[in-house]
Amino acid sequence: MIPKKHLIFGIHPILEALRANEDIEKIFIKQEIKLSNKKELFELASINNTPVQLVPAAKLKKITTENHQGVLAIKSQISFQNIEHLVPWWFENGIQPLVLALDEITDVNNLGAIARTAECAGFNAIIIPMKNSAQINAQTIKASSGALFQVPICRINNLKETIIFLKQSGFLSIAATEKATKNYTEVDYLKPTVIILGSEEYGISKSVLNIADEHVSIPIFGSVKSLNVSVASAILIYEAIRQREKL
Amino acid sequence: MIPKKHLIFGIHPILEALRANEDIEKIFIKQEIKLSNKKELFELASINNTPVQLVPAAKLKKITTENHQGVLAIKSQISFQNIEHLVPWWFENGIQPLVLALDEITDVNNLGAIARTAECAGFNAIIIPMKNSAQINAQTIKASSGALFQVPICRINNLKETIIFLKQSGFLSIAATEKATKNYTEVDYLKPTVIILGSEEYGISKSVLNIADEHVSIPIFGSVKSLNVSVASAILIYEAIRQREKL
Repeated sequence: MIPKKHLIFGIHPILEALRANEDIEKIFIKQEIKLSNKKELFELASINNTPVQLVPAAKLKKITTENHQGVLAIKSQISFQNIEHLVPWWFENGIQPLVLALDEITDVNNLGAIARTAECAGFNAIIIPMKNSAQINAQTIKASSGALFQVPICRINNLKETIIFLKQSGFLSIAATEKATKNYTEVDYLKPTVIILGSEEYGISKSVLNIADEHVSIPIFGSVKSLNVSVASAILIYEAIRQREKL
Repeated sequence: MIPKKHLIFGIHPILEALRANEDIEKIFIKQEIKLSNKKELFELASINNTPVQLVPAAKLKKITTENHQGVLAIKSQISFQNIEHLVPWWFENGIQPLVLALDEITDVNNLGAIARTAECAGFNAIIIPMKNSAQINAQTIKASSGALFQVPICRINNLKETIIFLKQSGFLSIAATEKATKNYTEVDYLKPTVIILGSEEYGISKSVLNIADEHVSIPIFGSVKSLNVSVASAILIYEAIRQREKL
């Protein structure tokens, strides 16, 4: 059950919230329901990078016993920021940004742990696709030691398009992939940089890998063949910091 | 409940197991029980670096419903190794060892995660004090992705004495502590090295800090003031690897 104060019930209040740019974690719609303004809801949600999921009635019952008329939204516990506003702001303020992009990290503990490390290292933002990412709920925030309230989180619609936007803005995009032959220490993190990490199961999606400027890997010498994704991100994050401290 | 096959019941079978150097995770004795050979048990357990804990009867009931006569032991799922045997073996085989020492890391997930990273990086051993360390149970092994079966784990009685032994054997001892002013990248990991990490709550104990050759910290720029210990160890572990790859 999610407390009533964290929920919005019914399509009209949710449409209002979307129009007012309120931060919504996720919208749930009962599968079989007929809504006259469903199209409008999906369009507004898409503009706001807010995920919408069609679910069976049983799923909604697990969230609340309140009267929701088949449509409910979970309010976000954090304020999302817009990467397209942040980038020009950073440049106007003489900041050489370091950004992390997480491609379908679905585990809340991993997402929280990565946010904690990125915040400690002073990273400027974390980019999270709206689809197939871990929810930012109480557990994620706890795992982050509150870092999710501190480091700007940018929820985006399409990671490939966002990486293209960053590249066009002068960012170097560095994708971490076990298949890369280049060591993560051999690239330069001194320019504006976006480090891209994928899930432990599937890695970074092909369309994103294809457009990344650099593919790097962390060398493995043992018989366990892969690092935990929060550990891998920490190693890359602090390599960037190490290189920049020499400046 | 722990399956019967993982347990040893009664003082005589446990004494036999200790004399045969079998790997025992922990011995539990019912608090109010009178045992004629209690002293022998404690002595043998101490020689074997096996922790013994006096517990109320209710605690034993949670472990098993079998007849244990007030004394039971949990068999270890891994084979412990002896650091005093490993060190000369490494040197005879031309290895410049990298060792991790964990001072009272009590969380099984942290211990597992650290073991995974150390194994991936090819570290030669992990040193764990027998008192106040996380148990190595099914959960720890799962969190390590099986790394605990691969990297040698040395359970020791007294961490300060073990660090002194390593220093006398030619190791550089590097203690990670938030209070250090020296950056972790400013020390040299090329010689035989032991990296010491403490718990997130209390850090490294004073007696161990006092004898460490170097105190280093990982720079923090954010408002969350500390890194998770498994993240901190990963950053130090891969700094050692980075420096050695340049050799």
